[in-house]
Amino acid sequence: MAQLLPKAFGHLIDELGSLPGVGARTAERYAYYLFRQPKKTSVGLAEALSSLHDGVKLCPVTYALIDSEQDVSPLYSQGDRDKTLVCVVEEPLDIVAIERTGKYRGTYHVLGGAISPIDGVGPDKLHIPQLAERIKKDGVAEIIIATNASVEGESTALFLQKYLRDNDISIPLSRLARGIPAGVDLEYTDQITLQHALEGRQQF
Amino acid sequence: MAQLLPKAFGHLIDELGSLPGVGARTAERYAYYLFRQPKKTSVGLAEALSSLHDGVKLCPVTYALIDSEQDVSPLYSQGDRDKTLVCVVEEPLDIVAIERTGKYRGTYHVLGGAISPIDGVGPDKLHIPQLAERIKKDGVAEIIIATNASVEGESTALFLQKYLRDNDISIPLSRLARGIPAGVDLEYTDQITLQHALEGRQQF
Repeated sequence: MAQLLPKAFGHLIDELGSLPGVGARTAERYAYYLFRQPKKTSVGLAEALSSLHDGVKLCPVTYALIDSEQDVSPLYSQGDRDKTLVCVVEEPLDIVAIERTGKYRGTYHVLGGAISPIDGVGPDKLHIPQLAERIKKDGVAEIIIATNASVEGESTALFLQKYLRDNDISIPLSRLARGIPAGVDLEYTDQITLQHALEGRQQF
Repeated sequence: MAQLLPKAFGHLIDELGSLPGVGARTAERYAYYLFRQPKKTSVGLAEALSSLHDGVKLCPVTYALIDSEQDVSPLYSQGDRDKTLVCVVEEPLDIVAIERTGKYRGTYHVLGGAISPIDGVGPDKLHIPQLAERIKKDGVAEIIIATNASVEGESTALFLQKYLRDNDISIPLSRLARGIPAGVDLEYTDQITLQHALEGRQQF
């Protein structure tokens, strides 16, 4: 069979296909869309991609994403952030979700994932010793564990609790409440969520 | 609120968000995935994007996608393609779908879309006069209309039929059969498809 698509087009489809959840059809759709747009759309995207690794790095203290020219995350260094309160999240983008609430004035610590044996992620791949060090150095008084409500997130929360105990770090640990999300009907709530909501019921 | 994500990261999210069907969350996921991959992944994608418009153009005869250094589509110029049989499709990628059947040896004509007043696409935006010209020049003996089975695709097929009649071009026109797709249970077939399948029933 003759080559059905131009080389440059096929090559772009292959490269786009490396994005998570993007199959051949989606990659074709993206590529054809970009081809029909003015050249500056694909060139603009190309430039943004080229400067990603040079412009972004991980904060050496919190492991949040920061500008390359920054030393530490502003969510750590700014004077109004309470360094004795640390919220532990799995990924840098989780910080954005919590910051959007506008209700948190502590700092963050990004683990860099969750324990998942099936994906080959053991506790040694996560920034857990660095958290223990921060607790001592910053005199952290409270930890909020905000891992995902998944099996991996729960395992990671349990491991973290055990790790701190085994290292003689005694500190109040809390975790995000499990319960019924805003705006959802009881009727459509799954059993596990309802069970959590019952267990965690609060005085009226 | 302080800037929550590094500039280069936010910029990439904005650019990725211009892709069709990609919202802020998906763009964040793509950007973070690329950040965690080795730099060569995003650079490779950037290079493929940069060479898209220089490496790809439309065939001046069939309006298929071709390499910039090609004169016409090989699916038109190759000796084994029957130039008197033309399959009319909406978009260049439709050609790939038909070629994958391996059962078609004619040539193609890409309209460049379908008539859709709501999207501001009138018949004047489509390569219809060019098809009429090709019919005369190549002595085309048969046209297969392979527009999509959507309202727009059907309208375009009807318009094309009328256009050729109005321009005194008398030529056998056929269109792709409508019916039950392979491997689908009758029970799950929608009413319109079943109606088409009944109307187009074939002698056993």
